[in-house]
Amino acid sequence: MESTEADNLSFVLNAIQDVSFQPRPVPKSLGDHEVLVEVKKTGICGSDVHFYKHGRIGPLVVEKPMVLGHESSGIISQVGTKVTHLKPGDRVALEPGAVCNLCHECKIGKYELCGNIQFAATPPQDGTLGRYYRLPAGVSYRVPDSMTLEDAAMIEPLSVAVHAVANIGDFRATQTIAVWGAGPVGLLCMAVAKALGAARVIAIDIVPSRLEFAKNYAATDVFLPPPTNPNESGMEYSKRCADTMMTEFGLQERGGANVVDVVVDASGAEPSIQTALHVVKVGGTFVQLGMGTADIQIPMTLMLIKEVTIKGSFRYGPGDYPFAISLVSQGKVDLRPLVTHRFPFGQAIEAFKATQAGKSEDGKPVIKAIISGPDVSPDDHM
Amino acid sequence: MESTEADNLSFVLNAIQDVSFQPRPVPKSLGDHEVLVEVKKTGICGSDVHFYKHGRIGPLVVEKPMVLGHESSGIISQVGTKVTHLKPGDRVALEPGAVCNLCHECKIGKYELCGNIQFAATPPQDGTLGRYYRLPAGVSYRVPDSMTLEDAAMIEPLSVAVHAVANIGDFRATQTIAVWGAGPVGLLCMAVAKALGAARVIAIDIVPSRLEFAKNYAATDVFLPPPTNPNESGMEYSKRCADTMMTEFGLQERGGANVVDVVVDASGAEPSIQTALHVVKVGGTFVQLGMGTADIQIPMTLMLIKEVTIKGSFRYGPGDYPFAISLVSQGKVDLRPLVTHRFPFGQAIEAFKATQAGKSEDGKPVIKAIISGPDVSPDDHM
Amino acid sequence: MESTEADNLSFVLNAIQDVSFQPRPVPKSLGDHEVLVEVKKTGICGSDVHFYKHGRIGPLVVEKPMVLGHESSGIISQVGTKVTHLKPGDRVALEPGAVCNLCHECKIGKYELCGNIQFAATPPQDGTLGRYYRLPAGVSYRVPDSMTLEDAAMIEPLSVAVHAVANIGDFRATQTIAVWGAGPVGLLCMAVAKALGAARVIAIDIVPSRLEFAKNYAATDVFLPPPTNPNESGMEYSKRCADTMMTEFGLQERGGANVVDVVVDASGAEPSIQTALHVVKVGGTFVQLGMGTADIQIPMTLMLIKEVTIKGSFRYGPGDYPFAISLVSQGKVDLRPLVTHRFPFGQAIEAFKATQAGKSEDGKPVIKAIISGPDVSPDDHM
Amino acid sequence: MESTEADNLSFVLNAIQDVSFQPRPVPKSLGDHEVLVEVKKTGICGSDVHFYKHGRIGPLVVEKPMVLGHESSGIISQVGTKVTHLKPGDRVALEPGAVCNLCHECKIGKYELCGNIQFAATPPQDGTLGRYYRLPAGVSYRVPDSMTLEDAAMIEPLSVAVHAVANIGDFRATQTIAVWGAGPVGLLCMAVAKALGAARVIAIDIVPSRLEFAKNYAATDVFLPPPTNPNESGMEYSKRCADTMMTEFGLQERGGANVVDVVVDASGAEPSIQTALHVVKVGGTFVQLGMGTADIQIPMTLMLIKEVTIKGSFRYGPGDYPFAISLVSQGKVDLRPLVTHRFPFGQAIEAFKATQAGKSEDGKPVIKAIISGPDVSPDDHM
Repeated sequence: MESTEADNLSFVLNAIQDVSFQPRPVPKSLGDHEVLVEVKKTGICGSDVHFYKHGRIGPLVVEKPMVLGHESSGIISQVGTKVTHLKPGDRVALEPGAVCNLCHECKIGKYELCGNIQFAATPPQDGTLGRYYRLPAGVSYRVPDSMTLEDAAMIEPLSVAVHAVANIGDFRATQTIAVWGAGPVGLLCMAVAKALGAARVIAIDIVPSRLEFAKNYAATDVFLPPPTNPNESGMEYSKRCADTMMTEFGLQERGGANVVDVVVDASGAEPSIQTALHVVKVGGTFVQLGMGTADIQIPMTLMLIKEVTIKGSFRYGPGDYPFAISLVSQGKVDLRPLVTHRFPFGQAIEAFKATQAGKSEDGKPVIKAIISGPDVSPDDHM
Repeated sequence: MESTEADNLSFVLNAIQDVSFQPRPVPKSLGDHEVLVEVKKTGICGSDVHFYKHGRIGPLVVEKPMVLGHESSGIISQVGTKVTHLKPGDRVALEPGAVCNLCHECKIGKYELCGNIQFAATPPQDGTLGRYYRLPAGVSYRVPDSMTLEDAAMIEPLSVAVHAVANIGDFRATQTIAVWGAGPVGLLCMAVAKALGAARVIAIDIVPSRLEFAKNYAATDVFLPPPTNPNESGMEYSKRCADTMMTEFGLQERGGANVVDVVVDASGAEPSIQTALHVVKVGGTFVQLGMGTADIQIPMTLMLIKEVTIKGSFRYGPGDYPFAISLVSQGKVDLRPLVTHRFPFGQAIEAFKATQAGKSEDGKPVIKAIISGPDVSPDDHM
Repeated sequence: MESTEADNLSFVLNAIQDVSFQPRPVPKSLGDHEVLVEVKKTGICGSDVHFYKHGRIGPLVVEKPMVLGHESSGIISQVGTKVTHLKPGDRVALEPGAVCNLCHECKIGKYELCGNIQFAATPPQDGTLGRYYRLPAGVSYRVPDSMTLEDAAMIEPLSVAVHAVANIGDFRATQTIAVWGAGPVGLLCMAVAKALGAARVIAIDIVPSRLEFAKNYAATDVFLPPPTNPNESGMEYSKRCADTMMTEFGLQERGGANVVDVVVDASGAEPSIQTALHVVKVGGTFVQLGMGTADIQIPMTLMLIKEVTIKGSFRYGPGDYPFAISLVSQGKVDLRPLVTHRFPFGQAIEAFKATQAGKSEDGKPVIKAIISGPDVSPDDHM
Repeated sequence: MESTEADNLSFVLNAIQDVSFQPRPVPKSLGDHEVLVEVKKTGICGSDVHFYKHGRIGPLVVEKPMVLGHESSGIISQVGTKVTHLKPGDRVALEPGAVCNLCHECKIGKYELCGNIQFAATPPQDGTLGRYYRLPAGVSYRVPDSMTLEDAAMIEPLSVAVHAVANIGDFRATQTIAVWGAGPVGLLCMAVAKALGAARVIAIDIVPSRLEFAKNYAATDVFLPPPTNPNESGMEYSKRCADTMMTEFGLQERGGANVVDVVVDASGAEPSIQTALHVVKVGGTFVQLGMGTADIQIPMTLMLIKEVTIKGSFRYGPGDYPFAISLVSQGKVDLRPLVTHRFPFGQAIEAFKATQAGKSEDGKPVIKAIISGPDVSPDDHM
């Protein structure tokens, strides 16, 4: 597998909505504990689209050209001198955050909070949408032969859901979960909850077709919030949504049964968050997963009286990738229905545009678009 | 200790700011697991004053005359037929919530969330400001001979602080805490943190004399928030307060040392809550203890990225009263400095007015006012 | 449903191996929070057989005639005046321990450790093998219409497994478990682990036919320990068994994958316990569930170096019955294969003898024998 | 601070009871994240003495000459190119385990279980009893100016106690602890429990003078086990010891008060372990900290019925060193009383002999002997 520097063709965001294909040098001088991966499949995430569209996400600003992409899988091309658990040719899922392993947060097993993390396609760190990507061996996970590299790329968003539901939310078998937002990550949260033995999985979204998808995929119940009423405040609307949901599904605030134990907001929208906080049981857990409006008004006195726990879930930490890989390889989560669109490398721009639109030109909803590596056919899931 | 029905003289809230002393029947027909207590000392709580002033707290409305008071100690007068751990004459601290012991929340060890709780001086349940009070034996705690009944009455607010800091906040030795609000409960949170082995205890309040009190009592550091600036939003102000605090105290967001591990809001005020959420470390815990503004705007995206845990702390649960009694009887918390004012039963109204004013007629700040039982001298701490 | 006192025909253990059917009075004067249940199905447990055979289990001695049985379901016959969630005619699973709800252990949510518990068929408390049984409403659980009363009786041993695996063992999806002992409770532990999303479930037993059953039921792997060797100590033998197992299954001590996260001993046998402690991963959890030899030699220095956690699992606590009912009603655990023998009430003695023998007269292994209520056909699973 | 290779004079164990002073090369080619420390104070540990006396501890065999010592402090001499938090001249406590930071156990925050650890004075890794020691910067902790380097050396055994009591034992304020073994580590466990707010600290030892020391240092109660009785088994003796203790101290098995919540065995002796398991409360925690007899008989059925948790505590993990440093620098633990003997570097052999004997030539008990660095006076605590 010879390569020259010019081989590392990459998909680069130059400025807002200005992308191009550029030759980049193949990473040289691999660290002792690093590997070089030939990237084969990359999913497009909302954050990629956000950078493409706005050039920033909050304080993270794209100030110089940056390769996009971070949901990737590939084949090991080279390994560092001290890497023993991987060899060239191994098929791997890439965890795109290179953590420092040295800070307090890394030491105590919360490396998602590492202050020195270099995360793919988060400025100024280049992403994975090139031919090659270099990363620490410790975050390169060999996947079973039975798993396609397309599925292996999807391990990234699945790990986000594993972190939120199994780890942060501490969701347990026989519990009930409600998930606001039926986009890719919300759907994966539902799938994880189902795999963990959920009694009920309630999906909430404002787009009926997404609820339909959720129902066919992993939700046991779906809820379309009612229209707003001009005479009510935002909090009144949220309370009304919650009351409607609870009546419709026979939910209670207390009592062990017929309660919503864990809620996940994968929408980032204020009415969703407020409604979720009204719906969650006394003593229950709310997980904030979706990034949206920065500041949100919450019913704090109610949170106090109900002793609700609100937790933020950021990316993924130790064990989440292996957990996600295990769920898929054992057949407990099926990732294939989520991949609705596939593009060759040369049409990466189209993948971004379709994801941004949320639907393809013929009106089919886009859940997840996968861009294949430079030499790979989109029809070959590898 | 003979008594007739007419003996149970009580301090009754008839309507907003309308109180009177009324004879009430002494509770008869004690349940098998109940005790009758002759109330000796009762502290006045902000919630008592709130009912006195407004006739309600949120949805809890005083619709018929209600005896006030719930922070009490006394002497056992009678015990039910199945009570074995108490006998007449025993000196006790009263936990004023009669829980059902049968619901799911009681069963799982979270009885503060019991939906059937009957809590003293929470409508329509009468409070403890009478000569006698009947309650379950299981929430009547014998106190050591060395503990005064005045201290025993103070076990109630101390248990609120124990619940918030030790239980909900899971505060540990060598950690740093910041507490917003230096009223009685905030001060007790600081005292509990100190007893648990805090490295630093930072008090924040907008009243300099309260900070001075905190510094002398249990705080290692105090902070007076800067004045607001007309050109900034509320969240901008809160962020500025946080930045100022962090600079002044050399605090960091990450790293194990020089971080604020746990924050407690005992104020209920929006700027306090927002500032606290900016100050708390990455991966830290925020505890909402103070009831104030119902709906609060919080920096949710920041909470997500920092993976902060926000928890409500409501009253106290199993083990909190014994924990509080142990702290005091072992000398780890000193309650005496907090009792700034003492009133005989006949001057209960004056106690409420002084607590409401926050200072006595001569300008001395009121931290905690204690009302003695009908036959007890305020100078006898018993 | 009229009844006279004489109606409560019961199956009574008079002395060692001396049983008889006796009329007993129907419980009268139901407590406010109690229910009277017409017992319909009762499983026979190893402890029932042990009392039948030896008249005691350790310090628990049958000193006067005692009704046997504690794994029961039935139909509500009467309810106490304060019971609201049940009514006559309701089909229920009976949790056979009446706890006090008042002691420290009950308060903190660990009622399995209640020192005042009255447990069915544990001397001197009578058991459930009569026509009627009186118990607290709080431990009578309505089962869905879709669940047979035979399954409802089996909720008792399933709750034992839920307590051990989900609660005490804190077993999580994608983990691997090994269970020593493929009797009814061991098999149910495997089923619970599978329902919780186990990666691998390894069954160990010294009886090949039981392993075969386990493989067909819920185990992914089975292991038959090798014969002992006269030249080795007990601990050497156990270490050899462990080494053999680990080699055969490709298990490791460390590393996240290919480790045994949780082990459950449902055998009570010293070689099983020792082997399990050698097999469990570094940092793993061992759960002692089976009662057998009272004193066991364990490799303590190894436990220290591996930082293993050893936990006892006793009966079941708050939430375990609802959890078990949920697993069955959602189809995550199938109890039917475990019921291998069914007896009418009049043949209760035969049920005990068959369970004691471990196989029926035709050599078929007995996993679980169910005795029907006095008026119920064994063929009607109700 | 010029140095030549010959400068690194070291105290080397050549074979069983064969030690000598040897020049060793000063470590060169410091890694990017490593530091070189000039060792100033080193405490002698039981394990050092065990290697000296037996040439091995279990499977760990000294097969080639090995520098002894691992409880050390010193002054930073050089830092690697990427070390930012330390500089030459800094006074540091040395955590003597260089972990890999890459394995699963390191990732999840349990680096004490790292399979690749290189631990000072554990064969074949050299120890700290030389002039210089090289270690990762991440395990070199700067100590406050107010802390002597003698205290800084003692941070090592204190961290062992912190790990066992605060971390593994999860000991909380107002709880009661019992510690078997009043040697240095047992005494430090008592000191940690006291610093955490223990209600009672019960010390158990078979040497009266050690109990006297414990009483003066950190224990509230002491217990000298009664002599054995030739007619009783080991377990019977242990049960009798436990009964005697519980009667003498008014201890109970259940109930929240007057129970022993956590027990720590710092002796490694079978009777201690057995007694501790009988004494610990229902639902309590036993921590195995002392290494002694490899295989121990425990009352397993009792552990099951009481739902006791048995946990091994091995060395120390993330956060333990900072916790220990904080306890000392805040005055919550006083290490000075424990240092009973001080030796110059040239008398290292005498330090080993005195520690082995457990008392000095004049009969004074040796709690902890400190060996100073080559150029340091034992009287200068630095």
